[in-house]
Amino acid sequence: MEYPRPLTMVDVVLFTIADDTLSVVLEKRANAPFRGRFALPGGYIHVDEDEDAEDSARRVLAAKCGVSDVYLEQLYTFTGRARDPRDWSVTIAYCAVAPAQRVPARASTKIVPLTEATGLPFDHDRILARAATRLRDKATYSSLPGFLLPETFTYPQLQRVYEVVTGEHLDTSSFRRKTLELRMIEPVSSTQERGARGRPAQLYRLADQTLRAYQRKI
Amino acid sequence: MEYPRPLTMVDVVLFTIADDTLSVVLEKRANAPFRGRFALPGGYIHVDEDEDAEDSARRVLAAKCGVSDVYLEQLYTFTGRARDPRDWSVTIAYCAVAPAQRVPARASTKIVPLTEATGLPFDHDRILARAATRLRDKATYSSLPGFLLPETFTYPQLQRVYEVVTGEHLDTSSFRRKTLELRMIEPVSSTQERGARGRPAQLYRLADQTLRAYQRKI
Repeated sequence: MEYPRPLTMVDVVLFTIADDTLSVVLEKRANAPFRGRFALPGGYIHVDEDEDAEDSARRVLAAKCGVSDVYLEQLYTFTGRARDPRDWSVTIAYCAVAPAQRVPARASTKIVPLTEATGLPFDHDRILARAATRLRDKATYSSLPGFLLPETFTYPQLQRVYEVVTGEHLDTSSFRRKTLELRMIEPVSSTQERGARGRPAQLYRLADQTLRAYQRKI
Repeated sequence: MEYPRPLTMVDVVLFTIADDTLSVVLEKRANAPFRGRFALPGGYIHVDEDEDAEDSARRVLAAKCGVSDVYLEQLYTFTGRARDPRDWSVTIAYCAVAPAQRVPARASTKIVPLTEATGLPFDHDRILARAATRLRDKATYSSLPGFLLPETFTYPQLQRVYEVVTGEHLDTSSFRRKTLELRMIEPVSSTQERGARGRPAQLYRLADQTLRAYQRKI
């Protein structure tokens, strides 16, 4: 027996840091419903093109935001009769994280501080709230926020990213201890950058192979 | 523009404890594909009946396993072209937890030890593995395993459930400390049960209101 199928789509919460502030990328909707309003970038699953829903999410990110090869994980699936005026719908929400340098400026997108991304169409406020909770939770025990940085970075840059995500001032020595415990970063031997007073500052990169595997689907 | 829609369904991993062993409920498939094989209880979303996918999961649990009003949470969504021979498909997997007394015996279902639930159809081995990881993770910081017990229970019964889930022997005094820290249980004042040597044993119930809210959708 064949049942009527719900609409099935993906939505992506793409976090970045802009002006030292945790921010998300929103897309101006080209089509009804909510045409012209800013919302999370999303789109239908294309069963002819996509191998799975993560493929769909990466296709949407590339097509709508010009962003590729970034950290991406499944967040939660939002469903029901009421969330989309078109039909009973399923959206598989993903959480993505990228440094601002990897997010190109486009006429159809904007980067807004998380605190100002409210009043979004559909249930996107709820999706965004859940994504922010996930990111902050992961900041307490994983290297996920490290993906907000370019491939190489200094120690103070890493600490600052964690401060921006958690909204808390972190003690430098306990933060250093934590990054060691988690084996979060590794020094990049050949490259160095000038530090504040002309001393060369050691550069690092993320060492977490498990998480790095998420960056580009293998 | 209208795109072809994937098949959209739910699957439920229902954990229980039988013969002092962490177990899951499997259902004999009544229809193709894999007719007659045991699999996770699941079914299509019925857009006419279900308010959202959690509704679908609860309907499936009631219809196929005779189980209702149990703890249920969304686990993960498994998607893709390859996972179901019928079509590109989306299954929203849920994790449910119930005491064995709440799982009626039926000709079409069986309760099997988790370690023996392998070689299942579709990607159900993968879904089951993820659910088991979730349950064990939550055993380290939440009262979720407590839902494997009847509404009231003794302290040794609670500890045993955690041991069965984690597969580890737990030190009684540190377990007691943890349950206090988490404010996991509260004494049931009026009821008592006979303990091992005829002493009355204090009965408890789960105190975690957040989790209790999941038991019955409000």
